[in-house]
Amino acid sequence: MSPTAASPTFRAIDVIRKKRDGIELSRGEIEGLVNAYTSGDIPDYQVSAWLMAVVLKGMTRPETAALTDAMLHSGEVLDLSSLAAKKVDKHSTGGVGDKTSLVLAPLAAAAGVAVPMISGRGLGHTGGTLDKLEAIPGFNVNLPVEKFRRVLETCGCCMIGQTAEIAPADRKLYALRDVTGTVESPYLICASIMSKKLAEGIDALVLDVKTGSGAFMKSEKDASFLAELMVETGERMGKQVVALITDMDQPLGKMIGNALEVVECVDILRGAGPDDLRELCLELAGWMLHLGGVTKNVADGKKQSADLISSGKALERFRQMIELQGGDPRVIDDAKRLPQAQHTLEVKSAKSGYVSSMQCEQIGTACVILGGGREKKEDSVDPAVGIVLHKKVGDKVEAGEPLATIYYNAEAKAQRARQLIEQSCEIAAVPPSQKRPLVHKVIGKSGDKN
Amino acid sequence: MSPTAASPTFRAIDVIRKKRDGIELSRGEIEGLVNAYTSGDIPDYQVSAWLMAVVLKGMTRPETAALTDAMLHSGEVLDLSSLAAKKVDKHSTGGVGDKTSLVLAPLAAAAGVAVPMISGRGLGHTGGTLDKLEAIPGFNVNLPVEKFRRVLETCGCCMIGQTAEIAPADRKLYALRDVTGTVESPYLICASIMSKKLAEGIDALVLDVKTGSGAFMKSEKDASFLAELMVETGERMGKQVVALITDMDQPLGKMIGNALEVVECVDILRGAGPDDLRELCLELAGWMLHLGGVTKNVADGKKQSADLISSGKALERFRQMIELQGGDPRVIDDAKRLPQAQHTLEVKSAKSGYVSSMQCEQIGTACVILGGGREKKEDSVDPAVGIVLHKKVGDKVEAGEPLATIYYNAEAKAQRARQLIEQSCEIAAVPPSQKRPLVHKVIGKSGDKN
Repeated sequence: MSPTAASPTFRAIDVIRKKRDGIELSRGEIEGLVNAYTSGDIPDYQVSAWLMAVVLKGMTRPETAALTDAMLHSGEVLDLSSLAAKKVDKHSTGGVGDKTSLVLAPLAAAAGVAVPMISGRGLGHTGGTLDKLEAIPGFNVNLPVEKFRRVLETCGCCMIGQTAEIAPADRKLYALRDVTGTVESPYLICASIMSKKLAEGIDALVLDVKTGSGAFMKSEKDASFLAELMVETGERMGKQVVALITDMDQPLGKMIGNALEVVECVDILRGAGPDDLRELCLELAGWMLHLGGVTKNVADGKKQSADLISSGKALERFRQMIELQGGDPRVIDDAKRLPQAQHTLEVKSAKSGYVSSMQCEQIGTACVILGGGREKKEDSVDPAVGIVLHKKVGDKVEAGEPLATIYYNAEAKAQRARQLIEQSCEIAAVPPSQKRPLVHKVIGKSGDKN
Repeated sequence: MSPTAASPTFRAIDVIRKKRDGIELSRGEIEGLVNAYTSGDIPDYQVSAWLMAVVLKGMTRPETAALTDAMLHSGEVLDLSSLAAKKVDKHSTGGVGDKTSLVLAPLAAAAGVAVPMISGRGLGHTGGTLDKLEAIPGFNVNLPVEKFRRVLETCGCCMIGQTAEIAPADRKLYALRDVTGTVESPYLICASIMSKKLAEGIDALVLDVKTGSGAFMKSEKDASFLAELMVETGERMGKQVVALITDMDQPLGKMIGNALEVVECVDILRGAGPDDLRELCLELAGWMLHLGGVTKNVADGKKQSADLISSGKALERFRQMIELQGGDPRVIDDAKRLPQAQHTLEVKSAKSGYVSSMQCEQIGTACVILGGGREKKEDSVDPAVGIVLHKKVGDKVEAGEPLATIYYNAEAKAQRARQLIEQSCEIAAVPPSQKRPLVHKVIGKSGDKN
């Protein structure tokens, strides 16, 4: 299925009316709409009406797969068949302190899996992989496809941003959804994510679908629905896909902010770093190695991943990738070579007790306010600023003890961030009775869990 | 409430999202959207997404009234307070052979009601008042407001088309709805109709909401819903409004086509013409006279209307209006002065029996095909062509006896029209057991029925 001009009998109005009336669209109708929109043959105002009808009427699984397929084939699909290794990627729906990609790409590559990772920038209160990588001086995320392929062949992983050739329909549709209240549809989210990921020419995909106060899908029910949709869509397109529903009710790890998150990833690759981040990285890496055919099950994949960290091989691979992508690999041994904030400010607990909950989205927003994310798309990001958490949910805290340290370059922003962090941390007299699991569940039949 | 620029805090995206999520919009939000769209401050693609959300989520009564009000005040609202008489108009949702406006305007005016009627053109399979009036040589439906007012003051009625000053928001919204699958919403239909009618500066409005195979609302349920919506919306805006749900399961009267319908209206105003058309005209006129304060109830209004026909005063008023609007009044006494089709063709019944039903929309489409309506908006209309029905539902017919006569100017079109008419008339062995009533029900508390 290559991009074709809309058939002469294709009428956008008929496709809009059918979706409005809840009638299932054919593959040809969906393809016609996507192709005609990408080529500029139908106007924004017809597509936005259709998008709203999709938001309110939903899509069947075949429709969702057809939409994904049409968007995928609106542009270039990488052919990485020259690489002997299986190509496996990981995608997260986004969270706060969610930095696993920087650990997973070199880790899985060190195990012999090829990781052709095309990532995005920070969106709303969540951080973005590209912004984190760019905190490393010189790191270039805008490689042409041929260079991307060479880095991948050399070190087994490469991390870049979306190119103009990849899924242009998604870029155009996303921009329209953003201004027409049609972002919030699991079907459209699924097609957007899967079309871009499948354009990487991968064999398998591990999805990290976040749930909780810092996720886009706050409820586990919504997260599971989206996860099932993406798994089924990927499988319909002949890929192995598994989705882990993981917790985002508090930030992942302790560091939030672009340069700070690079530091924490290096810590993990050194065998240090916070437990929750290490545990999630090993879980996701276990799946990547298993789907990549390196280990016969996930447990072995986790074990091998832990060994690659202990031996220093994973960190070595990260160093190599940084170098190949033009970055300064000395940041690994000397964190001071990363951008540094001018000031710090401690956020102290007003009372003694236990951290019972964190309003995770607010903490992400605090980082955006500091300049670590974008309030408007055209904003630039300050790589140095961020937040280091000293306490997480369940931890004991004394009155006056620091909950977090703010790294900032502008006093007024730091004060707004401090207020938000204070509001977001609830302190109770007793420890929380239940701990939320890190991995809520696994969706997909592509592998086993043993 | 005058047209104002969108408030600086107005964000279209917020209004779209609220409607998408089923949250009631405030009057200010609806006004902001309509004003910003009319002034070109928000793009089509945002408004079409909002329109689709309205189609699928509906509107509350206060929202519908607010939308109507905002559209009404997007342009000029006529001030006819200088006229002593009560201003009453009638609006029909459209049908086949639905020509009552040409009878009602002069009839109600002859009774002392002022009728400032702004009408539309044929839409789809239905005819339009302006097209019928323009069948009269010289008749000008494009009068400036001042001339409209003078004609109204002189003879009590004037019939024109929509001017650029009247409800510009409706014109812009209707064009967008037409190409985005968002025409079919009772809330949007209500706001479109009521905003234009209330811009006429009327005190009261009689709505003729059609139901049946030739109506836009095929079911009585849908027709009643729309009627109730329009009545309540008008009442919320301080107007007396009543809606009659009337039958459009077969054409009204016997003549369909612009010049032919003028002839049939003159027949009615002379005290002749078909029973169903006369009955409906008297019913609607009865309500107009009652709401116009001329008679104390509808029955008296019907009686007075019948008297004004018998005495020739209503016909005299029609003659006067034609003359004041530049038309040739001699058409009243000499129908040959109206445009004449070159040829006629009889449609004969294939078998003997009783006409059990007519697919009314098809008969309307047959007239459009002859050139009596528009297949595309830019088409011009042939005033001479049309159809005269010799049989209506319930009538006995012999095999070979004519069901209808086609008046045409192009042979190929006549053959297509003949086929459609043949298909649309069902002949059964026995007469239909039930006759559909002409007036199904009356909605509104503005008057009584006695």
